[in-house]
Amino acid sequence: MKLAMLNDRIVPVESLDPIYFDRGIYFGDGVYEVLRSYHGRLFALDDHLARFARSLAEVRITSVDIDQVRSRVERAFATSGLTDAKIYFHVTRGSAPRNHVWNADLEPNFFLTVSEVPDDSRDKAEGITVSTHPDWRWKRCDIKSLNLLANVLARQDAAEKGCGEAILVDEAGLITEGAGSGFFAILGRNLHTAPLSANILPSITRKFVIQAARNLGMEVVEQCLTPQQAAAADELFIVVTTKDIVPVVKFDDAVIGNGKPGPQTAALIAEFRKSTCSHLSA
Amino acid sequence: MKLAMLNDRIVPVESLDPIYFDRGIYFGDGVYEVLRSYHGRLFALDDHLARFARSLAEVRITSVDIDQVRSRVERAFATSGLTDAKIYFHVTRGSAPRNHVWNADLEPNFFLTVSEVPDDSRDKAEGITVSTHPDWRWKRCDIKSLNLLANVLARQDAAEKGCGEAILVDEAGLITEGAGSGFFAILGRNLHTAPLSANILPSITRKFVIQAARNLGMEVVEQCLTPQQAAAADELFIVVTTKDIVPVVKFDDAVIGNGKPGPQTAALIAEFRKSTCSHLSA
Repeated sequence: MKLAMLNDRIVPVESLDPIYFDRGIYFGDGVYEVLRSYHGRLFALDDHLARFARSLAEVRITSVDIDQVRSRVERAFATSGLTDAKIYFHVTRGSAPRNHVWNADLEPNFFLTVSEVPDDSRDKAEGITVSTHPDWRWKRCDIKSLNLLANVLARQDAAEKGCGEAILVDEAGLITEGAGSGFFAILGRNLHTAPLSANILPSITRKFVIQAARNLGMEVVEQCLTPQQAAAADELFIVVTTKDIVPVVKFDDAVIGNGKPGPQTAALIAEFRKSTCSHLSA
Repeated sequence: MKLAMLNDRIVPVESLDPIYFDRGIYFGDGVYEVLRSYHGRLFALDDHLARFARSLAEVRITSVDIDQVRSRVERAFATSGLTDAKIYFHVTRGSAPRNHVWNADLEPNFFLTVSEVPDDSRDKAEGITVSTHPDWRWKRCDIKSLNLLANVLARQDAAEKGCGEAILVDEAGLITEGAGSGFFAILGRNLHTAPLSANILPSITRKFVIQAARNLGMEVVEQCLTPQQAAAADELFIVVTTKDIVPVVKFDDAVIGNGKPGPQTAALIAEFRKSTCSHLSA
């Protein structure tokens, strides 16, 4: 490579931090995770590490030691001193001159941040509104990759409509999930959500919510809904790692229930809380 | 944000180059272009800048001055001193703490590299082999975005099969294009290629090739082919900015023609060359 340019400045290639040639930026060639702690304890760390290992394997980033990732996460969390922390981390395939084909000997780049979990008590108490958007994502949404432009555009569209999340609708007219969340509908005593597939992120919160629903005697129906069916549901909510269950009180133009978070969603939030707080009463 | 971690090193957030928080790496939230020069002159710069402006508009990265991009490209090219140069550049939405929703006041990041165009005379003389791969890309491939993981995985798969390019096949069983190229088939005197749509990058080389074909009296048929139809074609080639027309002599297991670049492809290469060399005879 002859030279590089950052904004208006021509710079010698050798002077640049290798991050500028990170395949993460050239191609989104990496995978990530977000997890959180509740009251000083990391929640579902094993599940997040297992999913991360699967994402790495699916995009064939090898040579990442998951135990090393675990100890990095634990060390960063401990160093932060936070009790309710949000931890983001990604691994990219490494830094190299731009070429779709990769060299087997690339060193992956690991990046992590710790920040405070934003207060979500208002969202939980009042619920959020959501709007639908075409699902423009790729065909391997089961991989938690850095290719998130479709999610960004959908979420931005929702934000500009005053909504807290975009609910993605595929070409068949079925809801897959939220731009950054899982999507659930309650019809009677049935809890509906999309079945896991290549079009759905295997959400860890989803797993705990399904368990909570079964604990409460609800029937879990893994089947995609149309927007019309969702708009007519008794209750709706999204699930996201950093906030677990967030009630949805408006779906596009349709007010859900009486426009306030529903009783079964509240029961699920309470039941879910048992898994995040179990160590406090121990 | 409380802290960040690079591999094993915990670092204060303030100490990090903003590139670490580039939305390009978090989300692939940016768009790019690749162009080249022939014999000391940038080829189709206006077309590349127009496509870049369209990509920026489609992902709603505003506040980029295309004339400024033009002058940066020209300055970097001139500074490089190369006659046959490959210029890559991207703009990301900017650097900010990770959040799908963007702030309107973000400053876009511009990054550019200049390198020498690799010699492709062997590919041109002997042709390359290609292999098919499912088209896993998102639904807005008309935008030249940094979300390229599907392209990377397909191209790597091809490379491991000893092939120079992956030809992508959508869920309907039709060829869209190559992982990093346009795809063309010659049947009789007809030149087939996929019509432009949201699933296809509006290739600039494609435009010049179509013009060259018309100059040669060929019929251009904008229609998707199945892999079976492509395998049975008289001649095949891919088009890519850095190499213009590259003959394809094997498609999966099917040898094309007599296994050597065909005469109509050779005629198109010669005709295309007129547009890249016109300034030399002037």
